[in-house]
Amino acid sequence: VRVSELSAATGVTVPTIKFYLREGLLPAGRTRAANQADYDEAHLRRLRLIRALVDVGGMRLRDVRAVLTAIDDERVTVHDLLGITQDALVAGDDRGDAPDAAGAAQAEVDQTIARLGWQVHEGAATRRALAEVVSTLQSLGWSVGVDELVRYGRAVDELADWEVATVPESAASRTEIVEHVVVGTVLFERVLDTMRLLAQEHHSARRFAAPDGSN
Amino acid sequence: VRVSELSAATGVTVPTIKFYLREGLLPAGRTRAANQADYDEAHLRRLRLIRALVDVGGMRLRDVRAVLTAIDDERVTVHDLLGITQDALVAGDDRGDAPDAAGAAQAEVDQTIARLGWQVHEGAATRRALAEVVSTLQSLGWSVGVDELVRYGRAVDELADWEVATVPESAASRTEIVEHVVVGTVLFERVLDTMRLLAQEHHSARRFAAPDGSN
Repeated sequence: VRVSELSAATGVTVPTIKFYLREGLLPAGRTRAANQADYDEAHLRRLRLIRALVDVGGMRLRDVRAVLTAIDDERVTVHDLLGITQDALVAGDDRGDAPDAAGAAQAEVDQTIARLGWQVHEGAATRRALAEVVSTLQSLGWSVGVDELVRYGRAVDELADWEVATVPESAASRTEIVEHVVVGTVLFERVLDTMRLLAQEHHSARRFAAPDGSN
Repeated sequence: VRVSELSAATGVTVPTIKFYLREGLLPAGRTRAANQADYDEAHLRRLRLIRALVDVGGMRLRDVRAVLTAIDDERVTVHDLLGITQDALVAGDDRGDAPDAAGAAQAEVDQTIARLGWQVHEGAATRRALAEVVSTLQSLGWSVGVDELVRYGRAVDELADWEVATVPESAASRTEIVEHVVVGTVLFERVLDTMRLLAQEHHSARRFAAPDGSN
């Protein structure tokens, strides 16, 4: 199909598609005339994936690029691809301005992981990201420690196991396997977060919805 | 204290503090000389809150403003403030370009909420946000329906109840109550998401870490 049809099928504007092509996020189409290229099902699928990562996952283009590069590199294992996707997700939140306050919080995060019995490599960006959030909470006066963190860990443990288990090991192509991991990691985070907000509204309605003088 | 000391105490640069003052996110200090204002503990606390919402919560300034306005408006109840915070969080993810595909997904979200027995008002932005994510997943070929959504709902139900229960009803000031809700909603989302990534690494290591031909 032509770029205009690619646009019609996905709702992504032609200039945006051309931008992705120029940036190498979307591979070039097969040339069939001087000024005309042909795009196939793989382009359509890749374009939908890019938009999902940007629109729903909130990833920056540089992080989208890192994930796409990993998808296309046959030497990257499924386990490593998951790590690269996690780094891309965490990078979007990391403004790098919490340099030292996280020391005590880091120890609590490490203790939490040990108490849960989880295998997480020492240098994981997620360990640092969690310590930064805990440190921020503590600087705002919250008493957040190992007990609270373990509570969150237990809540997501079974879900994460199920999510990883849905990776189709017998899928026809490596691309399908890794797209599954990328999309699942990014989009089910939104499912989880939004479900939590819905649950909060429910419990808030139970506790606070009656008209109150509210000080 | 002076603006330079406010900067030293928080790590926020003086130009950024002046920007927040000009934008009305941070209230003006008490004037004590022609070109000098005095800031107190309330400014320090508000500044830390703004940075937490922006840096860790990933909120845009317009959404930070909406939350701060609600904090300062004595007529906003705790339940309504939670709703405003949820809207601000959801707004950051909503690029508004999933107009109609969400019809079937919306019905599944509504059924899920009914099955869980949750009280969530009909027009909640979170209902629409969840339907958009589900619709995106389905367009990418995932079979996500009520059963899967209920699984996520059950995982966060107890956590959300605990989170809402931590709101200190007997706190000295309304500001403390509402800051607790805002910060808790925003920052514990990061705790939850990062915990899930850590759990995924653990389960991925169990399943995929052995060297494989990856193809």
